[in-house]
Amino acid sequence: MQSVVVLGLLALLCCSSIGTVRGGKIVVMPVDGSHWLSMKILVEELSRKGHEMVVLVPEANYHIRNGSYTTKTFKVPYTVADLDASLDIMKKGMLKAPGLYDVPKTFQTFMNFTEMLVKGCEGLLYDEPLMRSLQEQGFDLMLTNPFQPCGTIIADAFSIPAVYFLRGMVCGLDLEAAQCPSPPSYVPRLFTGNTDAMTFPQRVKNMLMAGVESILCKTFYGSFDELASRYLKKDTTYKQLLGHGAVWLLKYDFTFEYPRPLMPNVVMVGGLNCAKKKPLPADLEEFVNGSGEHGFIVFTLGSMVSELPEVKAKEFFDAFRQIPQRVLWRYTGVVPKDAPKNVKLMKWLPQNDLLAHPKAKAFITHGGTHGLYEGICNGVPMVMIPLFGDQGDNVQRMVARGVAETLNIYDITSEKLLVALRKVIHDKSYKEKMMKLSAIHRDRPIEPLDLAVFWTEFVMRHKGADHLRPAAHDLNWVQYHSLDVIGFLLLILVTVMFVTFKSCMFCFRRCLRKSQKKKNE
Amino acid sequence: MQSVVVLGLLALLCCSSIGTVRGGKIVVMPVDGSHWLSMKILVEELSRKGHEMVVLVPEANYHIRNGSYTTKTFKVPYTVADLDASLDIMKKGMLKAPGLYDVPKTFQTFMNFTEMLVKGCEGLLYDEPLMRSLQEQGFDLMLTNPFQPCGTIIADAFSIPAVYFLRGMVCGLDLEAAQCPSPPSYVPRLFTGNTDAMTFPQRVKNMLMAGVESILCKTFYGSFDELASRYLKKDTTYKQLLGHGAVWLLKYDFTFEYPRPLMPNVVMVGGLNCAKKKPLPADLEEFVNGSGEHGFIVFTLGSMVSELPEVKAKEFFDAFRQIPQRVLWRYTGVVPKDAPKNVKLMKWLPQNDLLAHPKAKAFITHGGTHGLYEGICNGVPMVMIPLFGDQGDNVQRMVARGVAETLNIYDITSEKLLVALRKVIHDKSYKEKMMKLSAIHRDRPIEPLDLAVFWTEFVMRHKGADHLRPAAHDLNWVQYHSLDVIGFLLLILVTVMFVTFKSCMFCFRRCLRKSQKKKNE
Repeated sequence: MQSVVVLGLLALLCCSSIGTVRGGKIVVMPVDGSHWLSMKILVEELSRKGHEMVVLVPEANYHIRNGSYTTKTFKVPYTVADLDASLDIMKKGMLKAPGLYDVPKTFQTFMNFTEMLVKGCEGLLYDEPLMRSLQEQGFDLMLTNPFQPCGTIIADAFSIPAVYFLRGMVCGLDLEAAQCPSPPSYVPRLFTGNTDAMTFPQRVKNMLMAGVESILCKTFYGSFDELASRYLKKDTTYKQLLGHGAVWLLKYDFTFEYPRPLMPNVVMVGGLNCAKKKPLPADLEEFVNGSGEHGFIVFTLGSMVSELPEVKAKEFFDAFRQIPQRVLWRYTGVVPKDAPKNVKLMKWLPQNDLLAHPKAKAFITHGGTHGLYEGICNGVPMVMIPLFGDQGDNVQRMVARGVAETLNIYDITSEKLLVALRKVIHDKSYKEKMMKLSAIHRDRPIEPLDLAVFWTEFVMRHKGADHLRPAAHDLNWVQYHSLDVIGFLLLILVTVMFVTFKSCMFCFRRCLRKSQKKKNE
Repeated sequence: MQSVVVLGLLALLCCSSIGTVRGGKIVVMPVDGSHWLSMKILVEELSRKGHEMVVLVPEANYHIRNGSYTTKTFKVPYTVADLDASLDIMKKGMLKAPGLYDVPKTFQTFMNFTEMLVKGCEGLLYDEPLMRSLQEQGFDLMLTNPFQPCGTIIADAFSIPAVYFLRGMVCGLDLEAAQCPSPPSYVPRLFTGNTDAMTFPQRVKNMLMAGVESILCKTFYGSFDELASRYLKKDTTYKQLLGHGAVWLLKYDFTFEYPRPLMPNVVMVGGLNCAKKKPLPADLEEFVNGSGEHGFIVFTLGSMVSELPEVKAKEFFDAFRQIPQRVLWRYTGVVPKDAPKNVKLMKWLPQNDLLAHPKAKAFITHGGTHGLYEGICNGVPMVMIPLFGDQGDNVQRMVARGVAETLNIYDITSEKLLVALRKVIHDKSYKEKMMKLSAIHRDRPIEPLDLAVFWTEFVMRHKGADHLRPAAHDLNWVQYHSLDVIGFLLLILVTVMFVTFKSCMFCFRRCLRKSQKKKNE
């Protein structure tokens, strides 16, 4: 009898230790734009679970507003106008066909963006009163997007564990920092356009890209290294600091990414943004239902692009005029007088709720992971128009799976758009493959948002996740690849061969001499 | 309104697609001994969930009996007496200190064991009526322990997906077949005694072992390859067949194993055997409660060893006589007349239920993963006496974590046992570290048994798990390691250097000649 009571107590103990941690204090370092839109969902859920969430917000930003969490604004040496200017350059760039002459320009854009991130971070780190007040709050955890180095640096300065929330990092720094093997023979590098099944020339390209990455990225992350070393007053690199992260929450899964090795502290939470669905507002419901058997198309180009040059927009209007489907388009640009009636233009639209509607026939998207997963979750085939960053790679993954068609924004015409739209709507294979992909994605033992919450709370409960940290972190490059061991074994082999050879030669000569002596005798 | 209904329908659709699959037909190829004891838990749970489970049982076996599943017995060309004889050789071997002269003997034992597995498998494969009747049943899935090659071969012959359930394979064939990177610089090889933090000589040893493994194992698995090729009438290897497995369920997690890379289709279900706890029978409850503040010790050496030579057993009885704890010992050997009163000898004991009792102070175990996880789950420090197979490596992992002491069975004395027991009972660090390890192990988003069931059902629902299969499977060794690409790039580099050098030399010579001409003029 006693043991039953004891078992009950043990069960209680067990459940309390693995139940929700209430009252955790989490400081959040987000990245603006669509990055924030996904992270916000996790931040709000953690807040709902009773954790105190403090989000650090740069004064100049687009999307980070107040919510069910506290915000702490910090000064940055740039304005929203500066952000606009920087974005404008990118927008203009995307409208031209890419060429070799664009490489230095793209690199410069990257460097400018990095500089802005670093300057913003500096503004926060060297705001002593703010940093002191933050430190005094005794946070249990830093939740950060490592695209912005500040979160990782602050976690180190405050000696608190960090949880990362991201899609990936330029040059695969995330994989490197997590000590995750990533063989270039079947793990395609970003911006190569390769899939996981590569021909020999593609593998050469992939290998070269891996090499270029490791060189370019020393420059790219150089300012992060310098800032971290200067602020933390120790000789370190951003990669080293990143390597101390407790858990990496990755915003994808293997319905999107090609299968590749993972590390124990990597958790996939792709699709955590499409769990919650709300009914459509009455006017939208009426509009989409009015589409009849032909259904409707959802069209957005992400949180940063709601306008297009008039001539470009015309191609879209012209195409939409020729299809029986209705179109919901997030568009704030110039509207031609003869805009077709089947198109409803909106400043912002409930994308996930629309895609969940059974009359949704296709989704025209730029291929950010946020929207892309809304497409997968709801099983809607896509016409994808990548604009910048990782979008080209994202799109290519969906095209390779046969659930999307892709078009270039710089040479799009109404004809091309029509062909692509008709293909994904009328060729049944797109819908079938998408439904299969969607079923696999949704078939999981635990919802991605719950998983993200669990691991964030786990790290707080155990003050890190040391048992998931591979010993590879304590090895240098030569040791990791066993080059010293191979060298040592080769040395022994060569020595043994040399000694054997010399001994043989010695014996041979002796024998020869003896036989000559005998002959001479 | 309509969209609400539609959303409801979608949710229903979603739930039905990810809910329990009822009526699946699963054929199970187990391995006898403690392997079966863990697998049985999963088989019974799948049966409880409504799946039709057919377990293939060799006529001569120790532990595989009828249960809530169907058994199909097949003839094997050996008897239980043969198994006994084979086991006796191993038991005798473990009582002697290992030396270099044991290596060929150990290899021979391994080869004999393999031969028995292969002969057993042949017995089944070439029993045409049985195989035909199995094929006619239209199984959805093969659940198998790949330690025995038969399951994988049958899965291929029946064209059904396979789910593996295992602790690991000799020579790391599981890692190789799953295309899982396993750098010898920090992933310790079996039988080396290395941890994940190695000195240079240890890394050399690890590298050599990796080399030896890959050579020895060609011999070791040679008969598996031959049988598979012969039966399936195609040129194949066991590794190739294994590589087609849909999901690998591994019977451990990172509270036991050192952190290392994983592949997408690898699922850790360590500790699935200690979820269910029953109250102790009245007599046992009385015995353990009578131990007062000193508590009691649980002592078992696994499912295969319940006896010890009299002289060896005496050391244990002598030690137990000198401690205030009570001891529950699974022992069927000779009992001395003066056996101490604090020791209760039993034929079989409810190990997990006993370890869950709060008065359990220590666990003397051989270090099989089954028992080891019962120790971890219940937070009981261990004195470990490895006997054979992977047990030495298992034990070393627990010792490295400071939750266990280890002793050799061949030179154990009552004094050594006493020292070890007193250490793990009275030195608080063992209990504290074990409680921490236990808390981390039990802190998980989903119970391991549920996870194992989920992934088995997932594979049935989607007829495999192709989206988790890395493209590395389609590359040969040279391609995987990019050696052809590196060679090609080196060739280009050398050619460019050669041409540049020759051109420079040519120019240089021309210049030299001209200047000499001028001088001569």
